[in-house]
Formats: sequence, structure tokens, C-alpha cells
Amino acid sequence: MITSEAYLENLRGIKKRVFLFGEEIEDYVEHPMIRPSLNAVAMTYELAGDPDHADLMTAESNLSGERVNRFTHLHQSTADLVSKVKMQRLLGGCTACCFQRCVGLDSFNALDVVTYQMDQELGTEYHQRFRAFLAHVQSADLVVDGAMTDPKGDRGLAPSEQADPDLHLRVIEQNGEGITIRGAKVHQTGALSSHEILVMPTRGLKAPDQDYAVAFAVPADAAGVLYVVGRQASDTRKLEGGRIDVGNARFGGHEAVVLFQDVFVPWERVFMCREYRYAGELVELFAAHHRASYGGCKVGVGDVLIGAVAALARAQGTQGAAHIKDKLVEMVHLNETLYACGLASSYEGQRTPGGTYAIDRLLANVTKLNVTRFPYEIARLAQDIAGGLLVTLPSERDFAHPELGPLLTKYLVGSVEVPTEWRQRLLRLIENITLGAGGVGYLVESMHGGGSPMAQRIMLMRLADLGAKEARALEIAGLAQVLTPAGEL
Amino acid sequence: MITSEAYLENLRGIKKRVFLFGEEIEDYVEHPMIRPSLNAVAMTYELAGDPDHADLMTAESNLSGERVNRFTHLHQSTADLVSKVKMQRLLGGCTACCFQRCVGLDSFNALDVVTYQMDQELGTEYHQRFRAFLAHVQSADLVVDGAMTDPKGDRGLAPSEQADPDLHLRVIEQNGEGITIRGAKVHQTGALSSHEILVMPTRGLKAPDQDYAVAFAVPADAAGVLYVVGRQASDTRKLEGGRIDVGNARFGGHEAVVLFQDVFVPWERVFMCREYRYAGELVELFAAHHRASYGGCKVGVGDVLIGAVAALARAQGTQGAAHIKDKLVEMVHLNETLYACGLASSYEGQRTPGGTYAIDRLLANVTKLNVTRFPYEIARLAQDIAGGLLVTLPSERDFAHPELGPLLTKYLVGSVEVPTEWRQRLLRLIENITLGAGGVGYLVESMHGGGSPMAQRIMLMRLADLGAKEARALEIAGLAQVLTPAGEL
Amino acid sequence: MITSEAYLENLRGIKKRVFLFGEEIEDYVEHPMIRPSLNAVAMTYELAGDPDHADLMTAESNLSGERVNRFTHLHQSTADLVSKVKMQRLLGGCTACCFQRCVGLDSFNALDVVTYQMDQELGTEYHQRFRAFLAHVQSADLVVDGAMTDPKGDRGLAPSEQADPDLHLRVIEQNGEGITIRGAKVHQTGALSSHEILVMPTRGLKAPDQDYAVAFAVPADAAGVLYVVGRQASDTRKLEGGRIDVGNARFGGHEAVVLFQDVFVPWERVFMCREYRYAGELVELFAAHHRASYGGCKVGVGDVLIGAVAALARAQGTQGAAHIKDKLVEMVHLNETLYACGLASSYEGQRTPGGTYAIDRLLANVTKLNVTRFPYEIARLAQDIAGGLLVTLPSERDFAHPELGPLLTKYLVGSVEVPTEWRQRLLRLIENITLGAGGVGYLVESMHGGGSPMAQRIMLMRLADLGAKEARALEIAGLAQVLTPAGEL
Amino acid sequence: MITSEAYLENLRGIKKRVFLFGEEIEDYVEHPMIRPSLNAVAMTYELAGDPDHADLMTAESNLSGERVNRFTHLHQSTADLVSKVKMQRLLGGCTACCFQRCVGLDSFNALDVVTYQMDQELGTEYHQRFRAFLAHVQSADLVVDGAMTDPKGDRGLAPSEQADPDLHLRVIEQNGEGITIRGAKVHQTGALSSHEILVMPTRGLKAPDQDYAVAFAVPADAAGVLYVVGRQASDTRKLEGGRIDVGNARFGGHEAVVLFQDVFVPWERVFMCREYRYAGELVELFAAHHRASYGGCKVGVGDVLIGAVAALARAQGTQGAAHIKDKLVEMVHLNETLYACGLASSYEGQRTPGGTYAIDRLLANVTKLNVTRFPYEIARLAQDIAGGLLVTLPSERDFAHPELGPLLTKYLVGSVEVPTEWRQRLLRLIENITLGAGGVGYLVESMHGGGSPMAQRIMLMRLADLGAKEARALEIAGLAQVLTPAGEL
Repeated sequence: MITSEAYLENLRGIKKRVFLFGEEIEDYVEHPMIRPSLNAVAMTYELAGDPDHADLMTAESNLSGERVNRFTHLHQSTADLVSKVKMQRLLGGCTACCFQRCVGLDSFNALDVVTYQMDQELGTEYHQRFRAFLAHVQSADLVVDGAMTDPKGDRGLAPSEQADPDLHLRVIEQNGEGITIRGAKVHQTGALSSHEILVMPTRGLKAPDQDYAVAFAVPADAAGVLYVVGRQASDTRKLEGGRIDVGNARFGGHEAVVLFQDVFVPWERVFMCREYRYAGELVELFAAHHRASYGGCKVGVGDVLIGAVAALARAQGTQGAAHIKDKLVEMVHLNETLYACGLASSYEGQRTPGGTYAIDRLLANVTKLNVTRFPYEIARLAQDIAGGLLVTLPSERDFAHPELGPLLTKYLVGSVEVPTEWRQRLLRLIENITLGAGGVGYLVESMHGGGSPMAQRIMLMRLADLGAKEARALEIAGLAQVLTPAGEL
Repeated sequence: MITSEAYLENLRGIKKRVFLFGEEIEDYVEHPMIRPSLNAVAMTYELAGDPDHADLMTAESNLSGERVNRFTHLHQSTADLVSKVKMQRLLGGCTACCFQRCVGLDSFNALDVVTYQMDQELGTEYHQRFRAFLAHVQSADLVVDGAMTDPKGDRGLAPSEQADPDLHLRVIEQNGEGITIRGAKVHQTGALSSHEILVMPTRGLKAPDQDYAVAFAVPADAAGVLYVVGRQASDTRKLEGGRIDVGNARFGGHEAVVLFQDVFVPWERVFMCREYRYAGELVELFAAHHRASYGGCKVGVGDVLIGAVAALARAQGTQGAAHIKDKLVEMVHLNETLYACGLASSYEGQRTPGGTYAIDRLLANVTKLNVTRFPYEIARLAQDIAGGLLVTLPSERDFAHPELGPLLTKYLVGSVEVPTEWRQRLLRLIENITLGAGGVGYLVESMHGGGSPMAQRIMLMRLADLGAKEARALEIAGLAQVLTPAGEL
Repeated sequence: MITSEAYLENLRGIKKRVFLFGEEIEDYVEHPMIRPSLNAVAMTYELAGDPDHADLMTAESNLSGERVNRFTHLHQSTADLVSKVKMQRLLGGCTACCFQRCVGLDSFNALDVVTYQMDQELGTEYHQRFRAFLAHVQSADLVVDGAMTDPKGDRGLAPSEQADPDLHLRVIEQNGEGITIRGAKVHQTGALSSHEILVMPTRGLKAPDQDYAVAFAVPADAAGVLYVVGRQASDTRKLEGGRIDVGNARFGGHEAVVLFQDVFVPWERVFMCREYRYAGELVELFAAHHRASYGGCKVGVGDVLIGAVAALARAQGTQGAAHIKDKLVEMVHLNETLYACGLASSYEGQRTPGGTYAIDRLLANVTKLNVTRFPYEIARLAQDIAGGLLVTLPSERDFAHPELGPLLTKYLVGSVEVPTEWRQRLLRLIENITLGAGGVGYLVESMHGGGSPMAQRIMLMRLADLGAKEARALEIAGLAQVLTPAGEL
Repeated sequence: MITSEAYLENLRGIKKRVFLFGEEIEDYVEHPMIRPSLNAVAMTYELAGDPDHADLMTAESNLSGERVNRFTHLHQSTADLVSKVKMQRLLGGCTACCFQRCVGLDSFNALDVVTYQMDQELGTEYHQRFRAFLAHVQSADLVVDGAMTDPKGDRGLAPSEQADPDLHLRVIEQNGEGITIRGAKVHQTGALSSHEILVMPTRGLKAPDQDYAVAFAVPADAAGVLYVVGRQASDTRKLEGGRIDVGNARFGGHEAVVLFQDVFVPWERVFMCREYRYAGELVELFAAHHRASYGGCKVGVGDVLIGAVAALARAQGTQGAAHIKDKLVEMVHLNETLYACGLASSYEGQRTPGGTYAIDRLLANVTKLNVTRFPYEIARLAQDIAGGLLVTLPSERDFAHPELGPLLTKYLVGSVEVPTEWRQRLLRLIENITLGAGGVGYLVESMHGGGSPMAQRIMLMRLADLGAKEARALEIAGLAQVLTPAGEL
């Protein structure tokens, strides 16, 4: 395992082509719009090296027997699954943003299971290739971007039916050395923070779409890979050079569109190629892991938001009001409900044939569906307690103005025991999480990360086993169970 | 362990004084208003003897090493805590009502911990007395009513401050043989189904209230004990002799006011007497166990309700409509969220010094607070899908009328493939759970059982550790952590 | 206008064939299960004769120029529409149940508009026939059951496609004298309280279903008409002879299945016969009026429920607790939101070509959709404040028992300043409205009356004018408006 | 009345001292961060001059008999109150932001009533002074900032008890010419768009706080008045020079802290001075008008958001999915519920003794409390439908890049019939309203504008008349009404 400094140093060696605001960036590692993301990832290294957290942050690899960062580990027990959720809450609490490394972890654990299954059933050698790749990731302690979401074009059409066949990423050529890829992956959280990109299909596929059934890894600076950084609310505050208005001065997140302009991948890094029947299972298993994840990371961000609001209430002298307490309790309640869901999904995980553990799919989808709701209500309550100053507070430069600053400090004080700057900083942090760059992660990513709410609902309908529930009801109602086929809705 | 038949037979030997509708009942075991409750309890025996469920329903006693019904077992691991929740979901699904035996189980596990603590700290011998009592319960496979809630009179006054000192149950006399008790316990779910009553204080107590700090067990037919059965919605449908309109023909619940008219308790059955400092902890621990419970039992009832609605949708030919599916998904989602909370509370349980495991208190309170909300929304959605016939359906006697019956059967058919009686029975079951006797358990007990919502909110405020959350927020906001004392709201 | 006594006396002269619990009832006017419904209707007469309320309860007929009961009046202004809502809130508050007479009123106002339109377009004489009928209703001050909902059988099939053609009510024969009708109407609220039945189609119809496009009036005791009373939660408490456990001793509601066994209707009472193109408009207009209605009547019942809970909080000594106040405020807020919707629908009503005013359809559907939600939450909050005794309270006969009664009175007292009986009565009233016979009206009727929630959602989609909203968005977004056809989703 | 061009021209003549980002701005009228706000206000002039909207946008002044902009009009009927709400919805729909002129309008209508009352009761001449001022406002067609909210310092202390007496604005001196004012007003929406500032007290006051009981008007560039512009989410996008990423290129809002550094006010512009007993009524009446306002303006913004989402669904090819339609219906439903509340508050308004009409206070508070909830849920649903691209879309400069642009255009297309730029613009508009500068107005202002939610709840408790509701309940419960004093909670 490496240090956070080594992580950043390594990254400097990876020369990605990155576009931002219409220009190609030279040094993305030091770019103030990108660096907070890298700092958040760096925390996954820092805490792994911290004796207080090493148990949670690391695990003994089943591949090497060595201690590895948990973000590179194949879950070997439900305890591993649970530790993942707890690690995520810790990191969410330490960064108040997305720390980006889960998507790689979830990809590893999904691919491990599905490549095992493919090899068993088809006699392929994907599993050993994948494990060789993963052993490298573990020993070098790499960050890997798990890339799933394609642009998709018209949602009503299959990949091969689209007007433009590139709207889903695909194999355009193959030879004895390897395959060539064209397409794009969107919403790539943490793409620039990564050493490697691990690509998977975006959906279940049928025979005509077999060119789209492809999984592979490439170095993040492979020839033909381009990154275009997406905009976030209040993103340019990171460029202003201040420490207060940015809300979260050290940490942040980013997403990128990643373009694959005819990228070559050698066979030893190909983990699926045209086995379209396995695409759906891979997507579903990845999604399940990732959906349960949010019962950890967003809970950690929720901790920060609740803490910020509680501290602000004290700074404003309202901490004793019954309705303030009641709203704090409600925020805690919703936040812990998410955590309970994340934990339960993990504790109820199951061993797969190859030995790697999979999350409970029903509960994972339940977790995520709650995550598409509760952070919004927590944010609403935070804005309620915060008061209107949340969006009317003058800039930190106004506070720094020799004549104006003292006036603002005088007039915008709350409780006399707390400096005005406390209020200022806490308001900016709450603004960041609920209506700024942090809201991208805390709200919209909570909505769409790991699949939009409708995807969870479809899974719930499939996994709910309504037939068994009907059988219980018919039994109680005194009805012979002859309605067939039960549960087919 | 005994059979369900033996259970009922044993009960016949316990001659309780029971009042119902202003009259003393001779044979409560056969009384049609009471018997469905006993049937529900009997299911805890029946399933324990069923090889398919024995693993879940029984456990190896740490007292005797024998296999005992799990309802009499002291949790010796988090696996025990989890099995309890799963057992409860199973039973809720098999009875669609409260099966009443959890309150005893939760009392055992709370008293075991607190008596151990008292003995350690005070040199008393409550723990061994209690364990002797419990060993008897286990070997005889008894049902025990855990009795906690006092009438309380004016909520703003402590027990000793009330105009009438009896509004909280208390020790009115003590001698070398034992103690004498006066007072009442209200909302006693399953009181008539029990062999024994295990009494605990209703709240935290201070020195002036020490007479109220009392825990003990008495046989359910002890001299001076009176039972007054409470009314439920549609309760007298059980007296009508039909099988359909009652909704749930075999199972049901009941609550009673239990009066203690100067009841004598020998010392060997006294487990707390005036140690007022331990009353609060006992109440809180019991409540935590009981609050987590609802993440099992109500989920099982929810399964039945969801199943009934799904089957009814098919009987009515609406199962294919997108909005019907969507509402079923929502019901499943809410139900499984409750389950996730119950599971997480259990998996996160902790060993106490005496070896018995305690539930995670924060998550247990979170579970219960969700239980005060989601069953109501599930019931609302059930009524939405069910349609207006839920409350306008003629009686089963109308359907049995030679001239009228065929007309009703003709006109009230839904899908031609399903007999009208299916619809009739399913509607009655849904009515039972959402607006009838079953709603007492599924809704109002979900609200108030184990303490009303405000009690959970108070616990959440105490257990939330806002100080730690504030520390996280201050760290991110770049503030030195000097606001003291942190988290004191 | 007549007195409430005269109303009941008139009713005695109408010899309906009524079935209840499998038996034909002789004197439905005096039957204790039916009489509370008649009492609620009688209140519409009583208040019309009360000088304090006469302005609201009566109106000047545009047919006769005479003062008539508002329940028989054609709205001649938005002020009339608003007065209707206010009258309904008043009556809901005076009866705490459904007072049944709105359905006739809404039928009058829908039929008046649609018959006018038919006569204008088709040269028929339905409008004058209808107005002649209505003039009779007004002068005799009659109660008229507006009968719309057919059994419907399989929801996926049109009336003429059903296995049994009678599952929607239809014309089976016609001659020079009139038409003959077969079929049924379900969920007929207040059927037994009525002098006349006014039948309308249940849905929009196409040419093959023209036999189902029929509207007419028959005396409630016409040959071939049969009534089967539906069951309600806790319905038989009305038969117990007590005054407390019934919750609402004087008032209640009922629904009936009304069977039309080849009933003859003379032409002068036929208001639509096979003009299938007008069926949809008639249904929609009736539904709009009726959906707005609930923004009045249920608000009145809500007033009673809120008042009962507030009084109970005082009886229990909890009225000062912040969370109790907060819940009361929430109940008030939700209740007044419903009222605001009912008022706005009315104030925004429009004159139709014939002079009669129609409710605003969009807002009427909005009103009803809120009514399918808020009463449930109000009821949940009421149960929260009420406490567990709501469902565990012994029967009034227990309280009347010479030995037991004093004990219950002693132990179940709350605040010392309030007699235990207050608590008992208020709990029973709250139980009635939230989990008893009153819940049929306050909850399930709120869900399904005037059409189930999905029906409102379909109307909202049709009436929302998304195209205009898109145009606004495109304008702001700087986009030429070329996406055509706009708003077609 | 003047044109929008004349409005901007006039404004240029008002030389305010404005600070932004720590610097004093020379020409605030042309400043790109401020100008969109002025454009929104200019729309109130533009539409007043548009024959299609003149009826709604203007009114006949009761002061002069002339046609005036409705934003300067004293409501002379409930029709005026209703027209205000409809005008607001129109303007919200035309600007998708706060158009700022309502706060002045609400101040006029509150001050008119309270100064009338003061003059009647105290023999002062405030009313005629105020009407003279207003006549000037009407004839010159001015924008007036109604300034109410003080910084407040420690919320638990009265103005005179604060450590710093300036934390509430106050009279520090008075002489024959006039009074001198010190203090600040925060959250001043539209301060820079105004010609005049109309100051009122921030809360109810008692005798020791009489110096704080002051109302007056000063020109917006009066000596000693300073403006510090507050920050908003994504505010600097307005400085980027683009037309797309800003989301709403033409319109926006702003808030300022306004400092009063010993500002002199001549007596003819003083409308309250130390009459502390009237401060509470003034605040309450202003707040009621302003709370009802949100049932218009936010509904208009909601129209734009719903339209944007509907258009985007078509651009993404998802418009036919049942769940998309269902979410659009839900958004419409919530939006129209707000409108219904705004309308009902207005229609139920009442004439005050001086002739000016006041809004219904209970319903106005109900309106606002819904506004603190529903826009958040509408925004959440908008983000659900929008998809993740809402927060991952590259910048417009990336799209303009010669090499990158075509690639992004290729990959980020949705439905082939809609240009990618449509999607881009609609996403940016939705981002603006739900997670950007527009969210300040649509969300946080909805929460806190016109007072935070707790203020509405307190008013609801006061206005709910629980006593009358209790009386209804007691009547139904068969209880004599002897609990006194009723409704005192």
C-alpha cells in the first residue's frame, strides 16, 4: 500500500488528455478545479495508513495474502461487506463529498463473480485474466474508474438500433493482439483521479448487440482516451483563491465524459467480449453493490451536514428551540435509516460459487431507493434551520474589505459567544452541500448514481416475490391457492 | 418444548378472572373474542415443532443447554438477535396479527442484563432469582406477559406526585415473605394468552418514587389479578359465527387492562424492589428490544397485506396497470425498509457484561420511528388498490341468501377467471388489517407499542452523538474545534 | 322547504326493499344501523331552517324564484359554488360523517349542463324534462341519490365486451311509454336516505356501448329496485344500544348496492338515452363537482377530529407539550389546505352556456387528489396524540359494571380536572373517525369517492396544458419554439 | 406609467453605493451580476404596457383615479387580491425568477391599513403622509424595496437586550426636521432594483424597544445607505459571457445587506415612530400578504420548471414512459395546490376599515407553509426526470471547441429529432432552478421569504380557533361543553 503523497505523485506520471472550459489542461493534478477530487481520493490512502482506521480501511487479500487497501479487495465474507459500508461512512464524514473509489471496488466484485461464471460455463479464461489484473491493482494500490454508463441516445432503442452505432461503447475491430474500442462513457465520477479505467457494458444485451458486450481495462492515459470535465453548481468558486466561499476548501468531486477514440486493448486486459448473455448479470450485480454503497457514503456526508447545522444552530443561538431539536432529530433519523439499509444489505450478503461475496440485491435496491429521497429531505431541513442568510451572505472578499468587513462582522453576528466567521463558514459549508458543488454528490448523485429510481423499482418488482406474499394472504383468507401463476403481475 | 395443543390445554388450567363487555367470562380459552389471540400464540408452538422452521424458532438455552423455544431464550449472539427478527417476520406472515409472545422475550432479555448489573453493583441476588424463574419458563415452555405500561394519570407529574398514588403500580407493603402490590398495567397485549405476568416499572424514577421501582413475576391467575379486555374495531365480528366478514377467521389479538388488587409476591419472584436508579435502564433496554421487534413482526403482517392486495388486483383484473404495479413496489419498498432497520439493529447488537446480547439502541429507535409511519402509508396504498368495495361490500349473510346471493355473486365479480368469493375474502382481509381489528395491531400498535413516537425522538436526540458530527463539520469548514461543550443542544 | 321531521316522515312513506345481514328489513327508517344516516341527512333540513345558517343552506331557485334548499339548487354564480363548499364544511362539522346529499346536487348540476348541450346540438328535449323533474325536487325538497358507479366487472373491457352484459347498467328495452333498465349501481352512499334515484352512466362510451348511455330518475321505491346495505368497520356497535362505544351516537353513513331488476322508466324521466357521445362529458362534469366537494365536507369532519384530539390532549394533560402543539398545527395545516383547494375550485368556476356554473376542473381534481392523502395523515397524527388507549379501552358496559366501573374510572383518569368519561368519549369518537365506521367516510371515501386517485391523475395530465409550460421554458432557455406538437406526451 | 426602458434609465440616475466581491461597483445597472435582476423587474413594466396583459398588470388607483401599475396599487377588492396572484404567476412564468416588486406592494398594503388605524386611534397623521408618498410612487411608477428583516443577533433576546443595540434598526436621534436611523436590513431582495426603500420593523415590540418601532421611506441613494450584494450558487456564471451555462441568460435575482449608517429621514416620510404597539400588527399583515404571494410567483417558476422537464423528456425520448408522466402529473399537482392556496387566500380577503383589502391570514399562512415544502419536491422530481447529465454536462465552451464540440454533440444527443443543444439548454435551465442561482429563489426563498416555517406554524396555532373545533367534537361526543377555557393549549 502506498501513501497519499505517493498516490498523487503516481498520478502526475499519468498524462491524460483533459478538457475543461474548452481548453486542454496541462497539469490536471494541480488544477484547482480537479485537485479537491484528488484530495478526497487521497484520503482513502491516508486513512488506510492511520492505525486508528487501518482495520476498517484495509483487508487481507485472498489473492496475495497481503494486506491491501479495502478499495481493491474482493469481499470474502459478510463482514467484508459490512466493513465497506462503515468505511464509506467514515470517508463521507471526513470529506463531505464523493471519494470516488467505490465504483472501482464494485466493478472488481461484480466482474470477479461474472468472469468466474463465464469461465465455468463457457470455458473462457476471463476470470484468471481479471484476477491477474486485480492482483496488479492491489499490489500497486491503484485507483480504478469503473466505467459503465453509455450515452444511450434514444432510450427506446437497443444499442444496435440507434441512428449512430457509437452511442453505446463497442468493439469495432478485433485481431490476434486484442480489440479496438469506440464510444463514450458519461457521468464518470473520479475519472481523473484514476490510474486505470475498467469498462463494462451499460445494460442487458441480446444477440444483435453482441459487439456492445465488452469489458476490459486500460491505463487511464491510453492512446485515444479523452476526458471532458463536467460543470457543477458553483464550480468556479474553486478558482477564486479563497477558503471560505468555496464551502469545502479541501475536498470535492468531479465527473467527466470519457471518449474512447478507437482505443486498442490487448487480450490479457479483456474480460468479456461478445458474451452478451452475461452483460445483464454484470450490470445488475455491479449496480446492487453500488446501490448499497450509498447507505454508507451519503450517510457520512449526512453526518457532516447534520453536524454543520447543529453547530450553526448554536452559533445562531437557536439550539434550544423545540422545533430546531425536532428537525435535527428528523435529519438523524433519516440518515440512520439509510445506514441501516446499507448495513442490512451487507449483513445479508451471500457467498457466490467462486468465493466472493455478493450483496443482498433486494435490500441493496431498497437502500438506493431511500437514498433518492432522504438526502433531499435532510437538505431541506438543513436549509430550514440555516435561515435565509444561507443564500444572502456577502462574499468573503466583502468580509476582508477594510471598511466593509467590520460592518458585516458587526451586523451578521449571531450568538455573542461565537465569532461571525463561524457562522459564515458553516453557512458556506451547508450551501455547498445543499445548493452548490457538494449538492451534485449529495443530491443528484444520490438520485442517479448506480441507476435512476425507476431502475430500482423495476428490480424491486422482480425481487419482491409477490407470489409468496400472495400465498400467505390466501392462506389467512381461507382460500385454496389455485390462482396460477401466482405473482405474475 | 410443548405442542400448541398442550399450550391451550395448560391455559385451561389457569383460572383467570376476565371481564368482557361488563361480564365475567367463564371459559376465556374458548371465548370467540379471545380464542383467535390464543391461536396466534399457539402458532409460536406449532412452528417450533415444524422441522422446516425449528432452526429459526428454537435455540440452545445458555441456562440448560437444552433446545428451547426462542421466545424464552436469552440472546447469546447477534445471530440470535437476527433470528428473532426473522422469526417475527415469519410469524407475522403466518398470522397477520400480533402473536404476543415478544413482549415476554424482550422482558427476559432486559431483566437479565439489569439484574446482573444490580447484583454486580449492589450485591443483591436478583439475577439468580430471575434466572431460576427463567429456567422454569424455558423448561415448561411458558408464555409470559411482560407488563410495563402504567395508567400514568397526569403525564406532567411523577408517580408520587399524582393525586392518586395508585396510578403507577407500586409496593404497598413488604415483609419477610414478600411484597404486596397495588396498581394497574394497561395495553397488556396477550395478557390472556399468558401463563405468567412479568411486571416492570414504566419509566425512569427518582428517590421519592422508589416504591414504584419494582419488578416481579406472578402466575397469571394470582389472587387479586383482574383482566378487563379492551375493545377493538369490528371486534364483535368474531362473535357472528361467520368465516368471511371477520377478515382473519383464525387469528387475532387482544389487549387488556390488568388490575393488581393488593397482590402478594414472594421474594423469590421479586427482581427489583426500590432500586429506583435502575428503573430507567430497564425501561430503556426493554424498549430498545421491543422497538427493533417491530422491524420483524409488522413486516410479516405487511407481507400478508401486500400479498392480499396483489391477489386482489388479479381478482379485479387490474394487475397489469402501471400505477398498480408502482403502488405494489412502493409497499414492498417501505416494508423492506422496516425489515432492513430491524436486521441492522440486530446485527449491530453488542454483548453485555453478563453475556446476554443487547440490541443496538440507536438503530432500534430508528426502526420503531419508521414503524410509526410506513405501515400507515402501506395501508393507504392498500386501500387505494383495493377500491371502494372495501367498505361497501354486503355481508357474507347477504351472499348466503338464496335469492340475493346469486345476484351479488353475479354483479360483484371482477376478472371472470376468479370466483367472486375470492374478491370478497381478500377485501375482508384487507379491511381487517387496514380498518378493522387487525388495524389495531398493524397501525395503532405500530404507533404506540414500545413507546409513542416522541419517546423514540427523545432517544434519538440522546444517542445521535451530535458532538461528533459537529466535529466533522468544523473540520471540513476549517474551524478549530473550540465551541464547548459540543453537541449540547 | 320542509322540516327534518317532515323529511323522516316522508321517507316512511317510501317502501324500499332493503336487505341487511341476509334479511329483508321492514322499517329501514327506524333501523339502528340506518337511522344515523338519516339523521345526518336530516341535518341538511334542520340547518336550512335555522336562521343562523339559512343564508348558507338555502338559495333562490332560478327555476321558481323561490327559496330552496341549496342541495337542490343549480349554481348560478361562483358565489353559489363557494357557498356549497362552506355549507359542506359546516355540515361535516355538525355530523362528523357523510351527509349524503351532495351526490344528488352534483348530479343536478352536471345533468343540467349536459342536457342543455344535447338539446342544443341534437334537438332533443332532455333539458326541459330534466328541469321539470328538478322543479319537482326543489318544491318537494327531496333527497336524490345520484347513482353513477357500475360494478364494471373486468376493468380492461368495455361494457359491451364483458362476459355478462349486465355488469354495466343498460337499457334492455324501449317502447312508446319508456325504457326498461337492468343492472346495478354500487357504493351508493345515502341510497336509503333518498326519495329518488337519479341514474347516470359510469364512464365515457363509444358506439357499441350505446345501450349503456342512459340517464334517468326513478322513485326510490320503484318496482324492481333492491337495496343491499354494505358493511362498515364496527358497524354493529350501532346495534349494541349504548351511547359511548359507537363513537358517534347520532350520526353515521351507509352505502348500498342498488339492483335494478328490469325497472321501467317513463320517457318524461329519461334524460339521456343512447347519446353515447355525451356520456364522458356528463361523468367528467359530475366528477369535477364531486371532487371539489371533498374540499368542504371532509374539512368539516377534519375539524371535528382536530377538535376531539385537542380536547383529548387537555383531558390527558399533554396539551402543553411542544410536539403535541406541533402535530395539531400540522393537522390544521393539512385540513385548511384541502379547504383552500375546495374554495379555489369554486371561485374559479365558470358559467356554462345554459347559465349554470361549472367548477374549475383542474383545481377540482387537484382538490380531490389531496383528499386522497391528507385525511390519512391527519388520522395518523390523531392516533399519535390519542395514545394507545384508543384501541385498548374497555367497553362502556365495563365502565357501567358496579364493581369494575369505579376501578376503571379510577385508573383511566388523565388530568384530574377532567372526568374519565370525557376521555372515554373522546377516544371513542377518534376511534370512530380513524379506525371505525367513521373511517369509511373520512378515509376510504376520501380515497375513492368521485373516482379513485388514478382518475384524478389522468385528468390532471389532460388539463395541465404542458404545451404552454414548455413554451415558457423554451423562451427562457433561449430556444425557438419548434418542437411540435408541443406538450404531446 | 413608464416603459421598461425608462425604468432602467431612471435607475441610472440613482447613484447607489454598492459593494460586490469586496469592491465598490461603479455602474450597477450594467453590471452583469445585477442586470438580470433589473431585467426581471423591467418585465413588470413591459407587461403592463402589453395590451394582452394590461388588465392584469394595472389597476385604477383609488388615490388618483388613474391607471397605475398593479405593483403600486392598494387592493380595493378581493378581485384585486386575486389579480395580484395571477399577475405573479404570469411574471414567474415569464422570468423563472423573483421579480422583486411584490415586497414593495405588500408593504404599501400593510402600511396603509396600519397607519389608518394609528391615525384613528392616536390622532397621528401617518396615514396621509403615507398616502402622499404612495401617490408619488404611483405617478412616477417607482419600484420600492419593502425592507423588514433585521440582522437580529441573538434570537433569544429582544432588540434592546442585545449586546449591540444596532442589531435591530432603530431611531438614534430625532429633531424638528426628522429622525436619524442606524442599523441594517438583511436579505433585501431587489434592493438594487429599487428607487426607494420603505423600512418597517422586523417584529412585535414592547415598550423598552420603542426606538425600534419605526417605519419610513428614503430614496435608495440617500446618504449613509450602503448595499452589499450577497452571493448565490453559481453566481459568477453570469460573468462568464456565455448564454447557455448560466441557465437563465436574461433574468435573475439578487439579495443585499443594506446598511443604514446614520441616515436622516424628514418627518413627511416617517410613517411610524415609537408606536411600538402597532409594530406586531404591521409585521403580521405584511407577512400575510407576502406569504400568500408565493402562491403566485413560485407557481409561475414551477410552470417553467415543469415545462422544461416536459420538453427535456421529449428531447431525451422518455416522454412516453408511464413513470415520467406520473412524475409530471405529481409536479403539476403540487404546483396547482400552491396556486389554489394563493387564490383562496385572496378570494377570502376582507375589507379593512380604511377601505383597503387584507388577505385571509389563516389561508395565507397555509399557503406559505406549503411553499416551504412543495417546490423542494417538485425540484426533486425534476432532477429525477432530468437524469445525471444535469450535473455532468460539459461547459458550453467545450461544445464550442472546434474538435471537441462535434464529439460532444455526437455523443450527447438524445432523441434524433431534437438537436443536442436543446438538451444542453434545458438541462442548464433545470440546473439553474434546482441547483443554481435560480434555486436561491425557487427553494431557499420559498423556505424563508416572508418568514421561516416556524413563523407560519405559530400563526396557524393562533388562527386555528381550536376552541370552535373542540366545541364541535364535544357536541358529537355527547359532552356538555364545560371544559374552560376552550382551546387554550
